[in-house]
Amino acid sequence: MRSRTLDERAGAQIAVKCENLQRMGAFKFRGAYNFLVSLPESARRGGVVAYSSGNHAQGVALAARLLGIPATIVMPSDAPRVKLDATRGYGAQIVLYERERSHREEIAHEVAAERGATVVPPFDDPRIVAGAGTAALELLGDAGPLDAIVVPLGGGGLMAGTSIAAHGLDAAIEIFGVEPEAGDDFAQSLACGERVTIPVPRTIADGLQTTSPGELTFAIARRHVRAVVTVSDAELREAMRFAFERMKLVIEPSGAAALAALLCKRLSGVGGKRVGAIVSGGNIDPARYAELLAG
Amino acid sequence: MRSRTLDERAGAQIAVKCENLQRMGAFKFRGAYNFLVSLPESARRGGVVAYSSGNHAQGVALAARLLGIPATIVMPSDAPRVKLDATRGYGAQIVLYERERSHREEIAHEVAAERGATVVPPFDDPRIVAGAGTAALELLGDAGPLDAIVVPLGGGGLMAGTSIAAHGLDAAIEIFGVEPEAGDDFAQSLACGERVTIPVPRTIADGLQTTSPGELTFAIARRHVRAVVTVSDAELREAMRFAFERMKLVIEPSGAAALAALLCKRLSGVGGKRVGAIVSGGNIDPARYAELLAG
Repeated sequence: MRSRTLDERAGAQIAVKCENLQRMGAFKFRGAYNFLVSLPESARRGGVVAYSSGNHAQGVALAARLLGIPATIVMPSDAPRVKLDATRGYGAQIVLYERERSHREEIAHEVAAERGATVVPPFDDPRIVAGAGTAALELLGDAGPLDAIVVPLGGGGLMAGTSIAAHGLDAAIEIFGVEPEAGDDFAQSLACGERVTIPVPRTIADGLQTTSPGELTFAIARRHVRAVVTVSDAELREAMRFAFERMKLVIEPSGAAALAALLCKRLSGVGGKRVGAIVSGGNIDPARYAELLAG
Repeated sequence: MRSRTLDERAGAQIAVKCENLQRMGAFKFRGAYNFLVSLPESARRGGVVAYSSGNHAQGVALAARLLGIPATIVMPSDAPRVKLDATRGYGAQIVLYERERSHREEIAHEVAAERGATVVPPFDDPRIVAGAGTAALELLGDAGPLDAIVVPLGGGGLMAGTSIAAHGLDAAIEIFGVEPEAGDDFAQSLACGERVTIPVPRTIADGLQTTSPGELTFAIARRHVRAVVTVSDAELREAMRFAFERMKLVIEPSGAAALAALLCKRLSGVGGKRVGAIVSGGNIDPARYAELLAG
């Protein structure tokens, strides 16, 4: 997608890759599908387990349905009903847990052990990373050569996949990651050269609330990423509104990170260049969207 | 655009033509541009005048800027500031009038007479109709053969252009128009065989608040249209929400009419068929959108 106003505001030629228009509304479907389709037949029979209240859960549930693999999703008991319904709608079984009393990752591994199932990690896995990278491949195929690509940065799966896919085609493409101000675990980790863990960040970008880079994704970031920058919640909201008004696109807060960095001219050296921006998802509750839009 | 859920709900294969993604956010740009580009050089120098507080005004203003033609837009003094600003942003001069005290069409003709300018009619003109028809041409080019095309129906410009463009390629394509329940001037007129005038309809579909079919557009409807159906405001809102949740698209109430008719299975004989649906625009104030989404 292109937007003349976006180009003017960003001072660059922006090609937007709309993963909010992806199946189930986010790029997470790519990694989940690639992981599941890579499982040997024996592992498929045992089923898969994922822990997430967000897009990863739905990506796994949908990929599992398409491939005929039983899926169990571990979700907090206070997850929004609409997400529970959507996950059930894809045919997954849901295991609820009390957010205060138990740790979802442990529960997922317990469930997997009981059932002989495979846990599908949310980002720190080569198959997840490779799947996520197909978005950048398509972007470069559609938009032609780019000088830079900007991606929202949570656990780093999208950033890592984008890096490898883009640099496989053209080593000169500059990769930028964009984190929420409150959740700058990647920026801190890159600055000090090792993985830093931060408290759960308070941000409207619920998909970017990771507390630490993945082991694999951090190693890839150190080799491939030009810079990691941060944006405030107000800037994310501004980018969501821009997408609403000027592009007629619904974007969730996390999904707007790359756009926000471009609109605020947070990225040095991209002026006048051809820049790809990945909008990573559009799954947001109508009431919550209304609140962020109107407020 | 395609949506699996839309296909399931409508019981047909739907190809959505997204005119909310058109320049200035609505199909109206097409007719305005075609009208202006058809003006002889002498008329261009005199400039153009349009009366509208909606998408037609912005379409004329943008087309005029692109073609270097002076444009004057007659707008009510209580028009939303965002629309006044957008119209000014396209470089048009604005003439305000008091909605209670004067008639905008007369003012437009007075302004045109004073300045030697040409009035650009909102829909009832062959150049406007022909321009609007290019949306259907593109839809058929992108989506391949269709059994039917469904369009929002206000003054009838989009319906007329769609009819002629579609039937020029394939006379078997069935054309459906969709009006708001409160504003069924076309349905009434077709039923009794002559143009009926109704009071200004109360509907959330502000772009479809016409009180009577155009002379030209009515003549075209009688020859080409299979049926005109109506949808309620609640159904328009439901379609806007569907587009938000399932397609991540921002659609204005008028723009959702064709989708609403499909989601409510209001069109007979389209089951299992390949159906084109035109989403005519996406220009809506953020606060108003939030209200319709959340309420």
